[in-house]
Amino acid sequence: MDILSVIEHKKKKQALTEEEIHLFVQGAAEGTIPDYQLAALLMAIRLNGMDMQETALLTDHMARSGHMLCPDVGGIPLDKHSTGGVGDTTTLVLAPLVAACGGKVLKMSGRGLGHTGGTVDKLESIPGMQVELDEETFVHIVREIGCCVVGQSKNLAPADKRLYALRDVTCTVDSIPLISSSILSKKFASGAKAIVLDVKVGSGALMPTYPDALSLAKTMVEIGKILSRPVSCVISGMEEPLGSHVGNALEVKEAIDILQGKAQGPLKDVALFLGSRMLLAAGLCDTEDDAMAKLQEAIDTGSGLQKFKEMIAAQGGNPHVCDDTGLLPQAPVIRPVYAKEAGFLCATDGVALGMAAQKMGAGRMTKDDIIDPAVGFVMKKRIGDRVEVRDVLCILHARDEISANEAEQNIRAALTFSPAPVSPARLIRALVDEKGVQDLP
Amino acid sequence: MDILSVIEHKKKKQALTEEEIHLFVQGAAEGTIPDYQLAALLMAIRLNGMDMQETALLTDHMARSGHMLCPDVGGIPLDKHSTGGVGDTTTLVLAPLVAACGGKVLKMSGRGLGHTGGTVDKLESIPGMQVELDEETFVHIVREIGCCVVGQSKNLAPADKRLYALRDVTCTVDSIPLISSSILSKKFASGAKAIVLDVKVGSGALMPTYPDALSLAKTMVEIGKILSRPVSCVISGMEEPLGSHVGNALEVKEAIDILQGKAQGPLKDVALFLGSRMLLAAGLCDTEDDAMAKLQEAIDTGSGLQKFKEMIAAQGGNPHVCDDTGLLPQAPVIRPVYAKEAGFLCATDGVALGMAAQKMGAGRMTKDDIIDPAVGFVMKKRIGDRVEVRDVLCILHARDEISANEAEQNIRAALTFSPAPVSPARLIRALVDEKGVQDLP
Repeated sequence: MDILSVIEHKKKKQALTEEEIHLFVQGAAEGTIPDYQLAALLMAIRLNGMDMQETALLTDHMARSGHMLCPDVGGIPLDKHSTGGVGDTTTLVLAPLVAACGGKVLKMSGRGLGHTGGTVDKLESIPGMQVELDEETFVHIVREIGCCVVGQSKNLAPADKRLYALRDVTCTVDSIPLISSSILSKKFASGAKAIVLDVKVGSGALMPTYPDALSLAKTMVEIGKILSRPVSCVISGMEEPLGSHVGNALEVKEAIDILQGKAQGPLKDVALFLGSRMLLAAGLCDTEDDAMAKLQEAIDTGSGLQKFKEMIAAQGGNPHVCDDTGLLPQAPVIRPVYAKEAGFLCATDGVALGMAAQKMGAGRMTKDDIIDPAVGFVMKKRIGDRVEVRDVLCILHARDEISANEAEQNIRAALTFSPAPVSPARLIRALVDEKGVQDLP
Repeated sequence: MDILSVIEHKKKKQALTEEEIHLFVQGAAEGTIPDYQLAALLMAIRLNGMDMQETALLTDHMARSGHMLCPDVGGIPLDKHSTGGVGDTTTLVLAPLVAACGGKVLKMSGRGLGHTGGTVDKLESIPGMQVELDEETFVHIVREIGCCVVGQSKNLAPADKRLYALRDVTCTVDSIPLISSSILSKKFASGAKAIVLDVKVGSGALMPTYPDALSLAKTMVEIGKILSRPVSCVISGMEEPLGSHVGNALEVKEAIDILQGKAQGPLKDVALFLGSRMLLAAGLCDTEDDAMAKLQEAIDTGSGLQKFKEMIAAQGGNPHVCDDTGLLPQAPVIRPVYAKEAGFLCATDGVALGMAAQKMGAGRMTKDDIIDPAVGFVMKKRIGDRVEVRDVLCILHARDEISANEAEQNIRAALTFSPAPVSPARLIRALVDEKGVQDLP
């Protein structure tokens, strides 16, 4: 058996055996199989698919292609992942809340590229915060405090790193078996035993249509079942940014506002919902109502905020940002954008808003770009809101006037108004777990 | 537009535009597109196909990806190609015969690899024969004599060279659009205006089934139509070697035997049939009967043999081999293989026979192997023949006794006998040209 017979079988739409999957995953990790053969195989997988069993084997072998963390964190190691949204700071809200309820959240996060932000970039806007920790320190913080958020370790799932880089340049990103195995292999390699996922749906999302998103969610839940690591998925829309704040320090501020009990809205709703799935998966609660109540209690008593402070302090950051968000980096130019016409906000182009923030300096165009932590904007209207002329649409936080003007134009172009009232689409569409698919109101 | 959008469109089964085809073919030729992107695109083409228009554009752009020969040979430049058979020496028979009838045969040939021989290797068994000529000399010989057979020029169709090498290592050989464009682009780049092709069908052939072979033939004829260069295809079986001689000098001897009028059989039949298509394409004859009669006349009068002598002399070889084939390299061990059982020869594994000759030294395992021109064997029985115990099955021409014994075993294993009479399958199955498909008796 060699790589050619593996490619040949997938080209002929045959299911690959575990031996074949092992061969190509190890060859990818060790660099013994050249890029062009992996590229041909990836395209064959993209076009001819993989069944559930193959996808689970692929996930498992990718997870085991490098170092595997088996952390002793004094509980079930929990993790969460989002397929990438704008203004999505759920991790920073739910990690401390779940920790406050006794959970152990072990989170490796990516950096932002393109129109979506990266959790690790957001955390770095906190003065002193370290996100590149060695594994021992990482596990120690989770065990002691209950949560820690760091950058992706370089030793985990090396096969995924190689395949992921190739997929990007060979048009093979949009394959459910390849997406599922890429997401879950990293989570399994980093030691997570129960995982909640937020699958975004909509234009600009990895999965543009609901059936695709549902199919991805079902696949990941099924892989979890086969590999005995419970996975549950939330399917949520990305028609507009999840939170009202877009930009690194601004999103940290919004997370703190929620932990302080000062802010409500979709970001909090999704964070608590994902958090409740974690508590249930860890056996820390029996019912969803119980889990939601516990998380709300962690807000009300301030124990969640306290956990966030402890985590920040343990990672070298200044915990006082939790009491005074003015300690976060501030942009020199802060000014409102006013509505020029009256009507109902009926559509928001989330990707365009993400790109507007990126152009302000909040995101990267290429991997080597340096992020400006202070810039971004705070949306004051959501889809469905009634807007009068001179209402504030958003507050810009810009590096300078030129950048603010450009951002204003880009944001205006991303918003559509209608004379008639509109009702916003449901944000959380469905929950998919081992029990099946549950539509959510 | 960039290579990613080309891959994306083919992945989504869209027809590529001429601009897209130009982009990827030029990028392949110039080396600006990396192997992994070409590999992904090749697999997408293999799985999602290309329509006739795309395939013709691909052929045209591959032909024009490097230097193009526009030879003034004093007539329509004719060429022929076989998809690769064992004991197939048609070129050496038809080129001189067509030249004797006034045709201009301009033939660039490959070297053998694997179980099929290469015409250029066969010619090199003639003492002194040069097959690496500069283009000017090549064209001059065709103009003066009417035929010349040389190795593939390195400057022609560089895009094909790159893609061909990649297809071999990415399981994307078996794609009709890719095969067609690869074959024809080289022919068009070398200046051929009319082309006859021999598409082999059967186990071990590039096209294992008749429908596949027919589809390839139809595609190549259609490409010729679109690009205004007449193409006709013969579909022939490769159940057994075409000629009775397998091995380099031995095949040259068989070609000379036919040109001398001493040998009959399928090799002569196919060579004359292909030759007749060339004469018709060049407008040198009006009907097939006329063309066949002219070619037979060139045998009867010795004018074909005379042309072969002239071509050999022009290419630096010893033309006296045509009068005395004993001047060709001779193997030290020449001995018969006798039948051990009586019966009817009902099946011959052509690929196994080709590999038996290869192992004797007649072919290459890897590109750097050196060929032994003298070795091979002469089959004395064809499928359908009645065989008695002690009948001669074949005559071995081997380097030594060990090699002869090994070859004997391999040849015996490739032959199957039955007690009941069998009728051989038709050798030439069909003719495909602009008029359509014609089944042949």
